[in-house]
Amino acid sequence: MKRIKNSFEHVFIVSHLIKWTLFVIPVSISVGTLVAWFLWLLDRAINFRFAHPWLLWLLPIAGVGIHFLYKYSGKNAEAGNNLIMDEIHEPGGGVPARMAPLVIIATIVTHLFGGSAGREGTAVQVGGSLANFFARQFKLTREDLRMLLTTGVAAGFGAVFGTPITGAIFALEVLALGRIKHDALLPCFIASFLADITCGAWGIHHTQYHILFESVEKTYFNYVHFDLILLIKVIIAGILFGLAGFAFAESAHTIKNYSNKWIKQKWMIPIIGGLIIIALTYIIGTQDYLSLGVTNPNKNGISIISSFHAGGATYFSWFWKLLFTAITLGMGFKGGEVTPLFFIGAALGNTLGVIMGAPIDLMAGLGFIAVFAGATNTPIACTFMGVELFGGANIIYYAIASFTAYYFSGHSGIYHAQRVAVSKV
Amino acid sequence: MKRIKNSFEHVFIVSHLIKWTLFVIPVSISVGTLVAWFLWLLDRAINFRFAHPWLLWLLPIAGVGIHFLYKYSGKNAEAGNNLIMDEIHEPGGGVPARMAPLVIIATIVTHLFGGSAGREGTAVQVGGSLANFFARQFKLTREDLRMLLTTGVAAGFGAVFGTPITGAIFALEVLALGRIKHDALLPCFIASFLADITCGAWGIHHTQYHILFESVEKTYFNYVHFDLILLIKVIIAGILFGLAGFAFAESAHTIKNYSNKWIKQKWMIPIIGGLIIIALTYIIGTQDYLSLGVTNPNKNGISIISSFHAGGATYFSWFWKLLFTAITLGMGFKGGEVTPLFFIGAALGNTLGVIMGAPIDLMAGLGFIAVFAGATNTPIACTFMGVELFGGANIIYYAIASFTAYYFSGHSGIYHAQRVAVSKV
Repeated sequence: MKRIKNSFEHVFIVSHLIKWTLFVIPVSISVGTLVAWFLWLLDRAINFRFAHPWLLWLLPIAGVGIHFLYKYSGKNAEAGNNLIMDEIHEPGGGVPARMAPLVIIATIVTHLFGGSAGREGTAVQVGGSLANFFARQFKLTREDLRMLLTTGVAAGFGAVFGTPITGAIFALEVLALGRIKHDALLPCFIASFLADITCGAWGIHHTQYHILFESVEKTYFNYVHFDLILLIKVIIAGILFGLAGFAFAESAHTIKNYSNKWIKQKWMIPIIGGLIIIALTYIIGTQDYLSLGVTNPNKNGISIISSFHAGGATYFSWFWKLLFTAITLGMGFKGGEVTPLFFIGAALGNTLGVIMGAPIDLMAGLGFIAVFAGATNTPIACTFMGVELFGGANIIYYAIASFTAYYFSGHSGIYHAQRVAVSKV
Repeated sequence: MKRIKNSFEHVFIVSHLIKWTLFVIPVSISVGTLVAWFLWLLDRAINFRFAHPWLLWLLPIAGVGIHFLYKYSGKNAEAGNNLIMDEIHEPGGGVPARMAPLVIIATIVTHLFGGSAGREGTAVQVGGSLANFFARQFKLTREDLRMLLTTGVAAGFGAVFGTPITGAIFALEVLALGRIKHDALLPCFIASFLADITCGAWGIHHTQYHILFESVEKTYFNYVHFDLILLIKVIIAGILFGLAGFAFAESAHTIKNYSNKWIKQKWMIPIIGGLIIIALTYIIGTQDYLSLGVTNPNKNGISIISSFHAGGATYFSWFWKLLFTAITLGMGFKGGEVTPLFFIGAALGNTLGVIMGAPIDLMAGLGFIAVFAGATNTPIACTFMGVELFGGANIIYYAIASFTAYYFSGHSGIYHAQRVAVSKV
């Protein structure tokens, strides 16, 4: 009898996987395609602004445009990533199909006029919205809809950063703080992997980051074979990365709440936000903290890439990027949070590397993944991200920094729809 | 008010981490030390048997010895890993301190006389038993006892294979099928890391495995930049690795159940088991499938290491190792299941590499982690293990093989105390 049950079990597993592979193929190919177009457009917009810096003066007006765009055609799409997470937890009104074009337009506009934002939020919303669209076509059950939405998140994330494993684990880990459920493991991975391949097929190349540091075996107290000094530095950095993630999440929430409370005319919020960004840019005298920040047209400018080299960030670069992004996203502009979190982390890592005398490229890479791990509460996905982006040689440090940052970022995080499944203490 | 709550939150987190670091230090240092001694003794026993192959004739008598050792001084220690998992799920009578010395002695005896077994089970039982001992000294609450036991499992696993990240994730992932809970994430990682460092400080070196294969970018249909042919081969292999994990778990359970049902005199079970092992060894004419199998004194012999090279395994090596181990562990001998699973996987990978014309070292490495992923239902831990043992270059294949094997191994697994948290279908 048991043997028969076991045989049936494999039949169920095979049919489950065939079913999900078939569901996931259209979702991931269309998400990968749309993300590829989005990344291409974004690159155009960023380079256009590099060539025409005066566009920044139009940021307040661009913000008003985004405001009315969402007001008159957005419905509930404005809730963005949080709406998708809520729908996965408890399917309700669905994720509207219009979310995809709206968020792409709004993100491109934000970047074109110099708002400091990212791109993962956009990709995830494209993923969620297309997954919801296909789920309706397939007439899926409630339970299957939740699963397909999760694969949409994985596809968007995997495609936008070129990190398929991280995309799958992120989608499973971000839903509830302190837990990974494996129910959608292979469907999410297939989605993330196919979306990444599709995005690559459209000719999109992802930025290459390099950590050249290689740990040399050191011996302490005659017997302990591990670089204990570097270990201590990485733990201290991990704590600060977690606190930076916490500070970012708190600032973004606080700015959003107070803007909505104090500024009665909603369309005034992006105008004031845009004006603050312009003022800050002229006060600190650099455009380095505008837009995406992965690269910088100015050879001596600060960017994520520059933060991997000595002298590539100032002591306050991380703080400025945090402030610019919290204002941009908290005051009505669109885009993701993750690339700015990479910037904040890499710049803070650079600074900590200088202060503590640790390898700059390693510390920048650790900050890159760990601030993100803290702010989104996804330490395991971020450890994988370290391997996918920087190679596996320093995985022990990725884990130390990400796990430590996870604990020190508290329970808030940037997504208020993230449920607390398992408390950190 | 919220700000105050947040400040308190960080105070709780810091005090939580300080408390757990202090609890974990004695556990992990003593587990690391005992595991180091165990590995040293094991190495001695294995080499002694290599020099004295006639020891195999005494295997049945050794088995009777182990039987009576557990019968007269074992109490509930015989339940081994399953007892520890049950105690973590629902603390009851506790894990007896005697479990550690008993399992070390029984494992060494098993290997000395040629039983086919592993070492992770032993290390995990040492970890659980020492953690339980310290928990009693510290007079921990029920909830804290569960957590310390989990860190004991992580410490044992991390130390025995020299893979700290895998140790921590394994301990969290193995408890319940289909779920990772982050509650003990950092304590488990600290435990696993410290135990590994401690084990290294005693002079223990772990076997180095090498995958020299590097994927070359291939282009299909003009646009798709991924080696699709290798991808298909890895998926097929992943399915077979999962089925091998399933076959191992089923065989071990079946042999155990039928021996207990058919052989009325319990002490006769290891005698018959020992005799079958001796008979099989002489029928197939090689001692390659006895004991641990990581290395082989015979230059042309089959081992885990040899499976990474062309000609290093025969088409049925994986089957023989599966059979030898299922009989050894199902009929009263002691030791872990994991190193034999590595052997089964590496040998099967070697064979599949030959049959399908895929890189032998890559396929052996994938089998190494994926059969284990399937049999223990720990796909995420095993993907990390790939990176920790073989480097990060082929992580995408580790994930494909481990995740696929996880689905195809069904719901049984080698630990019957593993609960099903999230079904695979």
